[in-house]
Amino acid sequence: MFTLWIPPSHPRRESLLIRERLVEGFKRGLVVPEGLIAHGRGECFDYLIGESTQPFAHRAIEAAIAALLLAKHPVISVNGNTAALVPGEIVELAREVNAKIEVNLFYRTREREEAIAKWLREHGALEVLGVGEDASATIPELFSERRRVSPRGILIADVVLVPLEDGDRTEALRKMGKTVIAIDLNPLSRTARAANITIVDNVVRALPLMVERTREMKKASKSDLEHILRSYDNNKVLQEALRHILSRLSELSQTKLTLL
Amino acid sequence: MFTLWIPPSHPRRESLLIRERLVEGFKRGLVVPEGLIAHGRGECFDYLIGESTQPFAHRAIEAAIAALLLAKHPVISVNGNTAALVPGEIVELAREVNAKIEVNLFYRTREREEAIAKWLREHGALEVLGVGEDASATIPELFSERRRVSPRGILIADVVLVPLEDGDRTEALRKMGKTVIAIDLNPLSRTARAANITIVDNVVRALPLMVERTREMKKASKSDLEHILRSYDNNKVLQEALRHILSRLSELSQTKLTLL
Repeated sequence: MFTLWIPPSHPRRESLLIRERLVEGFKRGLVVPEGLIAHGRGECFDYLIGESTQPFAHRAIEAAIAALLLAKHPVISVNGNTAALVPGEIVELAREVNAKIEVNLFYRTREREEAIAKWLREHGALEVLGVGEDASATIPELFSERRRVSPRGILIADVVLVPLEDGDRTEALRKMGKTVIAIDLNPLSRTARAANITIVDNVVRALPLMVERTREMKKASKSDLEHILRSYDNNKVLQEALRHILSRLSELSQTKLTLL
Repeated sequence: MFTLWIPPSHPRRESLLIRERLVEGFKRGLVVPEGLIAHGRGECFDYLIGESTQPFAHRAIEAAIAALLLAKHPVISVNGNTAALVPGEIVELAREVNAKIEVNLFYRTREREEAIAKWLREHGALEVLGVGEDASATIPELFSERRRVSPRGILIADVVLVPLEDGDRTEALRKMGKTVIAIDLNPLSRTARAANITIVDNVVRALPLMVERTREMKKASKSDLEHILRSYDNNKVLQEALRHILSRLSELSQTKLTLL
């Protein structure tokens, strides 16, 4: 294995650089092979979206920040891919909204929990929940290692941000009465459809934006934040995301596709 | 890492089994981490297509076989993912159309070249080009290890079948005057758009079909094959693939998207 040199002119340079960051995370033991495949699926939807943050994502980000700022016990749930791609931004956002950070893995092993916690601490995290004995509470309706959460984190959280989560767990968190904010490039995934607020965007773009917007929105009054949250409609946002993809494909299908 | 048990009733069982085959290939040293990501991307497009071979793919397969049967020096270019997914079918198709098999990697290392060649020989290949010293010729306009090809294979080929190829290399082969047949699930990829004939389908379905159709089409006359090839329109095929995806997404966008 070697590191690839990507010409500055390459049309998909940004996407290839993100891919390399994930492969780095894989070599470091943060990411599992299944996480690499899941990333590829995300790449496909990012490609369909146009690899830029769209208005529907900006609206969802605003509602997400309102929910996080209004929360009593906000928690950011971190898996291997998220840790590999945006470790610094996770730590910054947690600090801005005063949220706990909790490691939450689909394929949970002690080594990986610890590798991820160490990686987050290297990026400035003071506390990382959900590692080893700390993940002693369980979520109902989930099997095996996937049900384990921290009694100081997700168990008592009222708002949970789950970048790159799976559908089963999103639904289980909803059934526990929590407000779930998902970041998912696929507007048709079960995660996207089961969350209260779905940011249809790449975590690599969404997280830095969230940090920036939080700094602005912290100045808003509680009632302004409540108004943003009340007037937010996730079904509408998901439909807009899908319509955006449709209109892009529709435009392209009219043009000449062959290149040579 | 652990092997997953997939219930027979699982809605995405077939796709998960293919994924496991790829992860096996990864453990065997045929596939690189980047190949897993690329596979995930393909999975997503396969999902959009409906995970079945569509009429536009059947038409492209027919033209592809005509081109291969009419070729003087047909070559099948094999990368890690292709070798992991359809090794036996590659060997069978090469035998049916009398094509050379050449290993052609984006991330080229001697160990991987040899692991892939060994794997193909275990599946019946008598000769595998593009390994070690044999990859001594170069393709113009490409950088580093990616430019290396066999002087007995791709260098002198008139028709090259490239399942799962990247855009740069597809364009470089076209500029060398070769007829390029791509198999690519993304009808908008540069590979799909730069190839002469693009089979928008999963290699796992397309390769066995190609072997079967070749056995029938071998009985056709040279002028019949020439007619098939002349009347084939790749732009039309790509547009149909895109329209098919579009109508599937469009159906989905009419329904209520939020689940809870």
